Amino acid sequence: MIERLCVIGVGLIGGSLARALRKAGAVREIVGASRNAAHLQQAVDLGVIDRFDTDPASAVRGADMVFVSVPLGAMRGVFDTIRGSLAPGAVVTDGGSAKAAVVRDLESACGEIPPWFVPGHPIAGTERSGVQASFAELYRGRRVILTPLEQTDAQAVARVRAMWEAAGAVVNEMDIRHHDEVLAATSHLPHILAFTLVESLARMSEKREIFEYAAGGFRDFTRIASSDPVMWRDICLANRDAILAMLEHFGKDLELLASAIQNRDEASILRIFSDAKTARDAFTDAGDTPQD
Amino acid sequence: MIERLCVIGVGLIGGSLARALRKAGAVREIVGASRNAAHLQQAVDLGVIDRFDTDPASAVRGADMVFVSVPLGAMRGVFDTIRGSLAPGAVVTDGGSAKAAVVRDLESACGEIPPWFVPGHPIAGTERSGVQASFAELYRGRRVILTPLEQTDAQAVARVRAMWEAAGAVVNEMDIRHHDEVLAATSHLPHILAFTLVESLARMSEKREIFEYAAGGFRDFTRIASSDPVMWRDICLANRDAILAMLEHFGKDLELLASAIQNRDEASILRIFSDAKTARDAFTDAGDTPQD
Repeated sequence: MIERLCVIGVGLIGGSLARALRKAGAVREIVGASRNAAHLQQAVDLGVIDRFDTDPASAVRGADMVFVSVPLGAMRGVFDTIRGSLAPGAVVTDGGSAKAAVVRDLESACGEIPPWFVPGHPIAGTERSGVQASFAELYRGRRVILTPLEQTDAQAVARVRAMWEAAGAVVNEMDIRHHDEVLAATSHLPHILAFTLVESLARMSEKREIFEYAAGGFRDFTRIASSDPVMWRDICLANRDAILAMLEHFGKDLELLASAIQNRDEASILRIFSDAKTARDAFTDAGDTPQD
Repeated sequence: MIERLCVIGVGLIGGSLARALRKAGAVREIVGASRNAAHLQQAVDLGVIDRFDTDPASAVRGADMVFVSVPLGAMRGVFDTIRGSLAPGAVVTDGGSAKAAVVRDLESACGEIPPWFVPGHPIAGTERSGVQASFAELYRGRRVILTPLEQTDAQAVARVRAMWEAAGAVVNEMDIRHHDEVLAATSHLPHILAFTLVESLARMSEKREIFEYAAGGFRDFTRIASSDPVMWRDICLANRDAILAMLEHFGKDLELLASAIQNRDEASILRIFSDAKTARDAFTDAGDTPQD
């Protein structure tokens, strides 16, 4: 049982964790923090948090668990603000999509990597954002990756694991560098491709008409281009090296396919598409979302 | 009222049209044709068609409307086979995703562009294929683009338009070259990106793990990579020039974004992502699928 959870950044991710833990009876009190009092009041009105404080340093006082779910570019500032106000024994974790950058920010703020911080990443979300989009079931059956470091306290890891399991998630531990590479491939690159495609088409002269003639496939493919631009800008900067490596890898494969089309190389085109279908169908079979 | 509809290629597209017209009471008899008797028997068992013939030349005899929905690579063979067996006054249309290539095949088969052929393209579909995936509502509220030529009989266009309207679709006419460019942008390029991404990731050593940690965004983004590889190989060959132009256009935009990430150019990244979100949100607001 968490006695007092402090959620810094009460949006889709933080709000959904608060809702899930409350529904599971796994938390006694939830305090929200962010810079925007109106958003926080909305979170109180929705029953997501019990009370709020716009000063994160005050908000974390007396909390035994702190969850930081702000855009990656705001992590450093939060760590600077809260590190002197944490209760003895308090555990801090986060929801950032690029873990090495979060740990760099933490180390800069604290002068060392403290044992009470457990880097974490729930592999869940929708293209929507804000507390009004949060829901208690977001993490049910979803994976949460924890990337503890040598310095991280094992008890702190166990408490964060228990929190996510109470929210319905399946928790895995992973090397921090490997996490950042895997996420660059499965999440960051697809978002970049979707953003780029939609922006590219929107700039073409026929933009209105082009979208008029888009079908369901385009709709699904570009859904993630409705994601929060600030959050994704921060991810691109925070996981820059892994993302650039994946972009280069993908760019080469796209050039190979373009050459095959240019050369009317039917066999190569069919092989690429067939291999993709096989992999995607296997992934779907293992999946659990009803729209599949 | 269509007295006898002949559907050549009874899969998702042809099967759904047959179902829709039957449900609307807009057709008296439906004859199916393809090379696969077992598939055709399945279509009879499902009530999609009334009877079938594995020889398209026999199947079209006495039909007043013929719908050709085979992969683009099979169009030429179908035109060769049926052109001598059509009933006087019969109208032929198709569902191919690249129109210039279909017209080229037709012209090669007939020695000229005949007045009875109306090039058409329903902007609908799912990543599934086969008659078992067909359903009567596939075209409801969806667009169908007709690209009639100078030589095309106006009465034939009117009859094809009436057919699609009876199936619930909204029909537009468009210049054939413009159709091929718009579809390269909104359909062919996204499919190519999804196929390439999934194949690229599947070839990476961590392939199983990579897909394990993929979230809902990846699922949506790659859904179209489960589409029929043969159909999409044919589209790449048939709409080659427009697709290569779009690939080049997109590749340049992707390089611009990669440079912005490389140079930590926060403003450019944010502008691209924000413009994409604005365009995608506008598209969603205008959309009609419940999953949005």
